[in-house]
Amino acid sequence: MDVVGIIAEYNPFHNGHLYQLNVVKKKFPKATIIVVMSGNFLERGEPAILDKWTRAREAILNGVNLVIELPVGFCVQPADRFALGAMRILRDLGVTKLVFGAEHASYDFSRLADLTGTIHGDFSIYNESYAKAYQRIVTQETGLDISNPNDLLGLSYAKANLLLGNFLNLYPIQRQAAAYHDQNLPKDSTIASASAIRSGIFTKKADISKYVPKETLEDIKNNLSLSWQDFWPMLRYRISTSSIEELAQIYAMNEGLEYRIKSKLERLGPKATFEEWISSVKSKRYTYTHLSRIAIMILLHVKNSDIEVIEQFPYIRVLGFDETGKAHLNNIKKAIEFPIIAKVSQKIVKNKLELDHQAGLVYEQFNGSRQEYGRIPFRR
Amino acid sequence: MDVVGIIAEYNPFHNGHLYQLNVVKKKFPKATIIVVMSGNFLERGEPAILDKWTRAREAILNGVNLVIELPVGFCVQPADRFALGAMRILRDLGVTKLVFGAEHASYDFSRLADLTGTIHGDFSIYNESYAKAYQRIVTQETGLDISNPNDLLGLSYAKANLLLGNFLNLYPIQRQAAAYHDQNLPKDSTIASASAIRSGIFTKKADISKYVPKETLEDIKNNLSLSWQDFWPMLRYRISTSSIEELAQIYAMNEGLEYRIKSKLERLGPKATFEEWISSVKSKRYTYTHLSRIAIMILLHVKNSDIEVIEQFPYIRVLGFDETGKAHLNNIKKAIEFPIIAKVSQKIVKNKLELDHQAGLVYEQFNGSRQEYGRIPFRR
Repeated sequence: MDVVGIIAEYNPFHNGHLYQLNVVKKKFPKATIIVVMSGNFLERGEPAILDKWTRAREAILNGVNLVIELPVGFCVQPADRFALGAMRILRDLGVTKLVFGAEHASYDFSRLADLTGTIHGDFSIYNESYAKAYQRIVTQETGLDISNPNDLLGLSYAKANLLLGNFLNLYPIQRQAAAYHDQNLPKDSTIASASAIRSGIFTKKADISKYVPKETLEDIKNNLSLSWQDFWPMLRYRISTSSIEELAQIYAMNEGLEYRIKSKLERLGPKATFEEWISSVKSKRYTYTHLSRIAIMILLHVKNSDIEVIEQFPYIRVLGFDETGKAHLNNIKKAIEFPIIAKVSQKIVKNKLELDHQAGLVYEQFNGSRQEYGRIPFRR
Repeated sequence: MDVVGIIAEYNPFHNGHLYQLNVVKKKFPKATIIVVMSGNFLERGEPAILDKWTRAREAILNGVNLVIELPVGFCVQPADRFALGAMRILRDLGVTKLVFGAEHASYDFSRLADLTGTIHGDFSIYNESYAKAYQRIVTQETGLDISNPNDLLGLSYAKANLLLGNFLNLYPIQRQAAAYHDQNLPKDSTIASASAIRSGIFTKKADISKYVPKETLEDIKNNLSLSWQDFWPMLRYRISTSSIEELAQIYAMNEGLEYRIKSKLERLGPKATFEEWISSVKSKRYTYTHLSRIAIMILLHVKNSDIEVIEQFPYIRVLGFDETGKAHLNNIKKAIEFPIIAKVSQKIVKNKLELDHQAGLVYEQFNGSRQEYGRIPFRR
């Protein structure tokens, strides 16, 4: 039987995601669909607009059979690490096919991975970001443009697949609707980018009901929509009360960035916004996204050792399932290597979930609803 | 010439403080009055309602000649350490008389200090706070009740004076009006406790104009009045994202209190208030005030080494002065041992003011007005 995997953020779950699920169901009518989803903090270094439980429920109610949380240590990472963290979980869960959206679905991502697997960005050119350097070299080697975010993620999935023994087949789907970053809500389509939808929600100027399923619409009505604006006071407080030495211990902090982060904040003064601060730290070397990820690492107080722990001791954290998802879990239970976590206890927090638990405590401070202790997966 | 010292918090400056100044002026008509004032965080473990610059200005405009900031590492401390920090500054500034309010102005505080100077609280009785144990023993030895907060502070001043070679004479003044903790605004008097005045400000139900000079009234109208309610989200965020080991490094954290502090918070969940949290941690051993001080230490990320630094390298931080205060500073300049800081530079922050600077950054995040860089003393 087909087991299809999807790696997603669902921030929030919208009609584009639903479209993707329908394509999967048409192509593999009997498949079990498993989604590895980011938790409360996301790949591009930002808090999720709705918490992971809410977003997992939206996904299950719209046809996903099983939602697994990607541990926060893998979520807030560049594409390659993000992809590898998620792909390890998919392999352990017996997934045989990966479906993903791409700007160029026609690319042969597996072959691209073969060609580029050993390429690393030339980090010696100092006025270029790592991402830019990497893309430039890939294009030199292959002649293909991989600068679009979903193409780049696709390549990362393919490289992770290669590393993990090519355990699944890749099925890129041509991205519908606007580009990832398009801030406009299109008039002639029911599909918009997540980013345009979020922007509509935050400015409260746009009617987004056309672009999301009813479950998402209700969730947006019934919950606070969170963004960096909410978490920024905590971040600036943390930077203000951390010494240079303490900041230097934060994961991915290097090249003396800690000085720049602290001094720019002090110069801006007490009324600066998150965007003003990050723009003042930004350079050709440090992109907005790179700095946003570091900002999350500071906010959640993530150190190198925390990331090492989750890399060495992966686990499967279940956020939601339906009957099909449950049956699949039961079927493969014996074959699974990673421990399955359905309910959080103090013992589990201490041994495995320390970082996710901490991230949950920070998120729930704004969201008001407990993220870890006592929460059980959504069941359809 | 007489140089009279006062140790105060002015939280905020009210008619009781003005009364005290007038008593001093009547008693010592030609005296220069120097106040050592707590900065933005106070003795009982709470943020100041108005920032230190605002409060210093109120004091100068009401007749104080020179206001010096007590470094934050001495402010948020039990009476003995608070007193010693302030008295060292007064000695360096050539102060010859200390005036202070007391519930029992008739006590001979110098003699009391002689009798009790070597007494320390018996900390081995586990269901008694340090303060309670200390007061019990003093009463056993002297037959006098020193459980009232201003009597206790007076005794601490006297003990510090003894330690510092009896450099000044003590002038206790009988406290007017209600007791320190009285929450009522009296109808038949223009003097109320600072605590009653703050309570009136926060509940916005009471007219406090009768109890404060016009400068204070204007300051309250023109500034946000801050309390733990403002800083609590930061504190809870800090506790949530600190490991047990990190919390254990905070100044005055001992006997495993870090476990209790963290676990009680997690049990209470995301909607708990500061009062709910502290009440849940409180015990006979750990009083509300003791825990409030530790809360400030966590908030400001103060470690043992930070307190050692300020004890070893004291300084005189000028917040405000008039012509008389300025003349006094000029007169004694050469005799002063401690460095005088009038304007904060990066170099000064790095060498001396690190902790105060950090406290300023935390305070200004709520208050909106810069506390350190670029600020100069108020000049009348």
